[in-house]
Amino acid sequence: MAQTPSPFRTAEQRSRDRQAKKLALMEAAVRMFNTRGFHATSLDDVAASLGVTKPTVYHYLGNKENVLLECLRFGLRQLLDAATSARAEEGIAADRLRSFLVAYAQMNMSDFGRCVIRTPDEALSEESRDVLRALKQQIHGEMRSLIVEGIDDGSIACSDPNLLAFTLAGALNWPARWFHEGGGHSREETARRLVDNLAAGFLPRS
Amino acid sequence: MAQTPSPFRTAEQRSRDRQAKKLALMEAAVRMFNTRGFHATSLDDVAASLGVTKPTVYHYLGNKENVLLECLRFGLRQLLDAATSARAEEGIAADRLRSFLVAYAQMNMSDFGRCVIRTPDEALSEESRDVLRALKQQIHGEMRSLIVEGIDDGSIACSDPNLLAFTLAGALNWPARWFHEGGGHSREETARRLVDNLAAGFLPRS
Repeated sequence: MAQTPSPFRTAEQRSRDRQAKKLALMEAAVRMFNTRGFHATSLDDVAASLGVTKPTVYHYLGNKENVLLECLRFGLRQLLDAATSARAEEGIAADRLRSFLVAYAQMNMSDFGRCVIRTPDEALSEESRDVLRALKQQIHGEMRSLIVEGIDDGSIACSDPNLLAFTLAGALNWPARWFHEGGGHSREETARRLVDNLAAGFLPRS
Repeated sequence: MAQTPSPFRTAEQRSRDRQAKKLALMEAAVRMFNTRGFHATSLDDVAASLGVTKPTVYHYLGNKENVLLECLRFGLRQLLDAATSARAEEGIAADRLRSFLVAYAQMNMSDFGRCVIRTPDEALSEESRDVLRALKQQIHGEMRSLIVEGIDDGSIACSDPNLLAFTLAGALNWPARWFHEGGGHSREETARRLVDNLAAGFLPRS
């Protein structure tokens, strides 16, 4: 006999539902932070854009600083995941580095990545900054490790892995400020061309 | 017979004096913007740091937004001057580009340059943004022209001068966020090494 579906959701459904709501609120918030800036964004407006009220935002994400912190952590975790995936790929380190850099650049052109780059440290409490700093250092560490692996397998030329990681990150962070959808190349194409510039350098190769 | 020096200052002395006071106020303001952020900085504190009062700041620089605008224009004009000087140098375009890039990177590690990079657009009115955007476009144009000259004289390899200018600028803007005096290399040495990375690329040259 076919069972009537239960009107009660399972624990798993409830958890999935909660995550989806949380993410929708973060997406609405991050877009406002990016367009208006953190100070000019109100949680009332974030809530209204999804047809809910401020207490709903509080329930899922806490106060405005915490909303920002959650958005930044989400963006940084995406970057860290991209690094971990790239490191696990097959092949020479230069190719794995390129693969990470292309993903990194693309993320910095997306809503969460743009928020990571555009948010000044001063918007956050010392405690939140520490949380984010630790994540940023992990990402920097992954990039640095890929460079060191490339020096070891001969696929990367570099005398200072730390500074090279800063050089690459800077060049690929900056699109968060200037890239606009529909302004020529796609995100992926733009990311690839940026990384090609960094890989080849601007001096001719004979 | 030796004349008694006049107790009245000449028009030239007054103008020099006025410029010196204006710059001192801008230097005090830009340091506070960089450490506390624009929103958390009060003109009272800027004034107090020089032993004057807020009306003095208003007299020389106007309201807080105008103080910020003056600081950003000053920083951008320094970058533009560096570009003009580099373009007027002798030699192949790749060397002139490097010379500009090293100056550009160093300026982004100084107080005014850091303010240019760290200030989010949202801190400014639409009118002020237009003023700054025009200056930024001039700087970008100078960098782009140096690249085009390098393609012409064979000293630079590049298929997209516009994107290369963005790549280079991004890599050299970013030290505004991470460079700290006394943390290893000097500004100049750090700038040179960053530019070397960008010139050579990270793929080995055979």
